[in-house]
Amino acid sequence: MSGAFLGVLGGMGPLASAQFMLRLTLLTPAQRDQDHIPAILWSDPRVPDRTAARLGGGEDPLPWLARGVAGLEAAGAGAIAIPCNTAHGWYDELRATTRLPILHIVEAAAQDLARQGITRGRIGVMGTAATLAMRLYQPWLEGLGYEVIVPDAAEMEALVTPGIALVKANRVESAYAPLAEAAANLRARGAAAVVLGCTEIPLGILAGPHAEIGLPLVDTIDALALAAIRWARG
Amino acid sequence: MSGAFLGVLGGMGPLASAQFMLRLTLLTPAQRDQDHIPAILWSDPRVPDRTAARLGGGEDPLPWLARGVAGLEAAGAGAIAIPCNTAHGWYDELRATTRLPILHIVEAAAQDLARQGITRGRIGVMGTAATLAMRLYQPWLEGLGYEVIVPDAAEMEALVTPGIALVKANRVESAYAPLAEAAANLRARGAAAVVLGCTEIPLGILAGPHAEIGLPLVDTIDALALAAIRWARG
Repeated sequence: MSGAFLGVLGGMGPLASAQFMLRLTLLTPAQRDQDHIPAILWSDPRVPDRTAARLGGGEDPLPWLARGVAGLEAAGAGAIAIPCNTAHGWYDELRATTRLPILHIVEAAAQDLARQGITRGRIGVMGTAATLAMRLYQPWLEGLGYEVIVPDAAEMEALVTPGIALVKANRVESAYAPLAEAAANLRARGAAAVVLGCTEIPLGILAGPHAEIGLPLVDTIDALALAAIRWARG
Repeated sequence: MSGAFLGVLGGMGPLASAQFMLRLTLLTPAQRDQDHIPAILWSDPRVPDRTAARLGGGEDPLPWLARGVAGLEAAGAGAIAIPCNTAHGWYDELRATTRLPILHIVEAAAQDLARQGITRGRIGVMGTAATLAMRLYQPWLEGLGYEVIVPDAAEMEALVTPGIALVKANRVESAYAPLAEAAANLRARGAAAVVLGCTEIPLGILAGPHAEIGLPLVDTIDALALAAIRWARG
């Protein structure tokens, strides 16, 4: 244990970052409070919408993200985790604002694929339209030898984007059906696993009978929590 | 919305404070991220055990609690919520360290009893041995006209204290049976409702078939979250 806090830049959305704190706790081997990892969660849901900024010329979230990182650093964080995939589109810019290491959610997802024994083949990636358009996952996974497929534009519009919005509106149970359908479509196209590459997606998927999807899933909340535990224990 | 962050002094235990963040989010009427409440969670599970300090001469947690409050104030909090009942044994001392209002979990629990339509009669209170011994709930609820009953020493030793420890060790499902038995015993003694006056207890109770307990429960995580939402919106 490094002694420093884990800094969690959250609020994007707030349910995903609360779930990150829950899973960080449950995935940590512990017998009593004092065995758990000290963490500070900066949950600022006012950060301008990342997808609107990237695709539609919406307000730049970078000043808000940088403010959170600075607040976490001032409070005593020793590393930063960001349980929002789309926010990683500003990863390099954020790195330039701080001396702290920032865990990368795509690296954590790739580690989780390997942990699940999936080391090659076709991988489906679900995410926000911005995450897919900026190709956050494709070069990273292709560099490791995977082939990447993603939902098509019609599936994004009818299934994935509405599913993510339902979670942000606290309607996790309604989010299951469209998100599970998009995952099943990727399986039908030959995916050996699906990366839930937006932290709202696992909340919707876990709210329903997700075993029926019938293939391994990478929950990027859990993957990032496991990476954070490795940081804290290493 | 006040514009300031809600400051959450957590980590006691860390699962309870993560659940507080989750419930704060789910209980807030919202359609998108930006409708949710900005919050900073200071989750320091290294705070010395509150019950050991109060009953057994263990290390004083007050300097740790005060450090968290100061950190939250420095980060921009406008009020403090503490999702740990036993820590409220240091409420007056903490108030003296900060200009911020600190929501009181016992007041929030009393408001929740009224919200559930329970305005008189016998109320069971479950909590840590320290919370019961320092009579955190009794004068407050008796002043509102309720009669308070608590588990006896044998039930505390055999059921409530082990149930709380199981949650802190991430074994929430094993915690259900002893905690539900203690609640059912209070019902058998005439309680019209039971206050789950330790934030680990609702985690254990919710992990099992809690409707079978057969009487209204005050979940102090939810009660405090509702009080925090009233602060943020008011």
